[in-house]
Amino acid sequence: MTAKIRIGIAGYGNLGRGVQAAIAKNPDMELVGVYTRRDPQELQLASPAPRFAITELERHTDQIDVLILCGGSKSDLPEQGPKYAALYNTVDSFDTHARIPEYYETVDAPAKAAGKTALISAGWDPGMFSINRVYGEALLPDGETYTFWGRGLSQGHSDAVRRVPGVAGGVQYTIPSQEAIDKVRAGLRPTLSTREKHQRECFVVLEDGADAEAVREAIVTMEHYFDQYDTTVEFIDAETLAREHADMPHGGFVIRSGNTSDEQKQVIEYSLALGSNPEFTSSVLVAYARAVHRMNQAGLTGAQTVFDVAPGLLSPKSAAQLRAEML
Amino acid sequence: MTAKIRIGIAGYGNLGRGVQAAIAKNPDMELVGVYTRRDPQELQLASPAPRFAITELERHTDQIDVLILCGGSKSDLPEQGPKYAALYNTVDSFDTHARIPEYYETVDAPAKAAGKTALISAGWDPGMFSINRVYGEALLPDGETYTFWGRGLSQGHSDAVRRVPGVAGGVQYTIPSQEAIDKVRAGLRPTLSTREKHQRECFVVLEDGADAEAVREAIVTMEHYFDQYDTTVEFIDAETLAREHADMPHGGFVIRSGNTSDEQKQVIEYSLALGSNPEFTSSVLVAYARAVHRMNQAGLTGAQTVFDVAPGLLSPKSAAQLRAEML
Repeated sequence: MTAKIRIGIAGYGNLGRGVQAAIAKNPDMELVGVYTRRDPQELQLASPAPRFAITELERHTDQIDVLILCGGSKSDLPEQGPKYAALYNTVDSFDTHARIPEYYETVDAPAKAAGKTALISAGWDPGMFSINRVYGEALLPDGETYTFWGRGLSQGHSDAVRRVPGVAGGVQYTIPSQEAIDKVRAGLRPTLSTREKHQRECFVVLEDGADAEAVREAIVTMEHYFDQYDTTVEFIDAETLAREHADMPHGGFVIRSGNTSDEQKQVIEYSLALGSNPEFTSSVLVAYARAVHRMNQAGLTGAQTVFDVAPGLLSPKSAAQLRAEML
Repeated sequence: MTAKIRIGIAGYGNLGRGVQAAIAKNPDMELVGVYTRRDPQELQLASPAPRFAITELERHTDQIDVLILCGGSKSDLPEQGPKYAALYNTVDSFDTHARIPEYYETVDAPAKAAGKTALISAGWDPGMFSINRVYGEALLPDGETYTFWGRGLSQGHSDAVRRVPGVAGGVQYTIPSQEAIDKVRAGLRPTLSTREKHQRECFVVLEDGADAEAVREAIVTMEHYFDQYDTTVEFIDAETLAREHADMPHGGFVIRSGNTSDEQKQVIEYSLALGSNPEFTSSVLVAYARAVHRMNQAGLTGAQTVFDVAPGLLSPKSAAQLRAEML
């Protein structure tokens, strides 16, 4: 039997927890350890696993095949990505779209120098949605691509709502417009404004004595976050927030609509309906860890993206088995 | 400016015609010639292009970067696949699922010996649907995959209907069951019988004096083709057949439904709504011709499948451009 792929987890928030759950679903992998900046003895794991201070990563290079970086894109990954790509094969979910080219360069150099493989920006967007944008455009070059997000909880917009004075708690859901989706699915290739594609729905708990109307106004007029959308604000109590809005569902659609001739329209659609956004993202990271391990063994080093990874590398099955069973 | 990718078309049926249309949509490609077993001077092309007898392929090896094989899987490709893989980089749509492993071997050996790259079984099923079955299983290992076809015209089943005594003409549409799709989309992971997944709908023109009831009975009880399905037969006249059933629409769904934890369900869906089945298949072949050209330049020779092709290789954009624009 082949040796299991030895995985390390750097960072134990929602994503790290999801990676631990995903490893348990993949019999060809094992979890070597969870590495944290907190006191490892204080870290509560969802299921038992070795816990280490993150500084131990300097010494564990011969014990881990792939290190999955589960930190955030704002401050964790810009530091950890280049640092650990010099020591390990890595997978991360860097998702600040505009900074990906720059991030790629900072990770590529140390990974190449160390003979390591570093897969950046995996997940579903960037990630599976990006792959489907590329496939769609390549298969139907005379066409238009549309990405819709939701219905789902947006972490960034929920944070923005919670920063409004008078708000004690709250969440924001992004809702794709059914009318817009229907037009796209019909192959009409419509031009859609920001307002026509998505609505935003907020559930807010007020602080004692806060002015509901002022809070509502502050939210719906907030620049960049809400002013270009039709936004609804519903006020609820703290118990309702905890009971009905604790999950992190998300998803969306990538639709490519195009013509292969003047007469013939074709529509390709990829959609996700996710019960848990972080758990799905984590599952994607773990599948790409398998691919990264194989790419490194094949001598493909340096930074890579999901565009560089052949689909078969994600599967535990051999190429011959995939041809016989899945083609 | 980079030289265009020079494409040859072997065989000019629906697929060859579609490949010609697809090349016109891809500015980085040019059509070198259409190669036919018929008299090339008699061949009517949809738009002007050089026409050659297929025997000329023995002599044009320095004029073509990728030869797209547009023959059928039953008798053309088993002969042409191995033969032309010894002379050219090739792409084909071999779609007899059960024979793919054997076909792969017969193409792999001559391609490897000649330093050529041969992409077999491209299209949408096998092809894009297969890719999505692999992605789905890898991302959600604890789950079930469902493939539904239609609503679409099935060539094989239409041929079977037309072979029934008393039938002058006809077509068969495969219809996926909405009830079954709804259960799968809801993440219920149902066990579905053949009858529960698809219905079959036939439109038939009778020969003069044929017994409608006998024809209907012969169709709905036909082994393998119809006996396991709920099949309806509607009798129409020849004009209606020509007017309303000349297009070749098809499509379908690949749905993966799975759990990332006991609490959380996730559903991934890939769907195609195709105005023209052969034109879409041809577009896929042409995008894979680009990938094959690049793989050969990178030294990746021998038989390949869609599982071996990284998504970025299908796009005319560079890796850096894809990272900046599409990730």
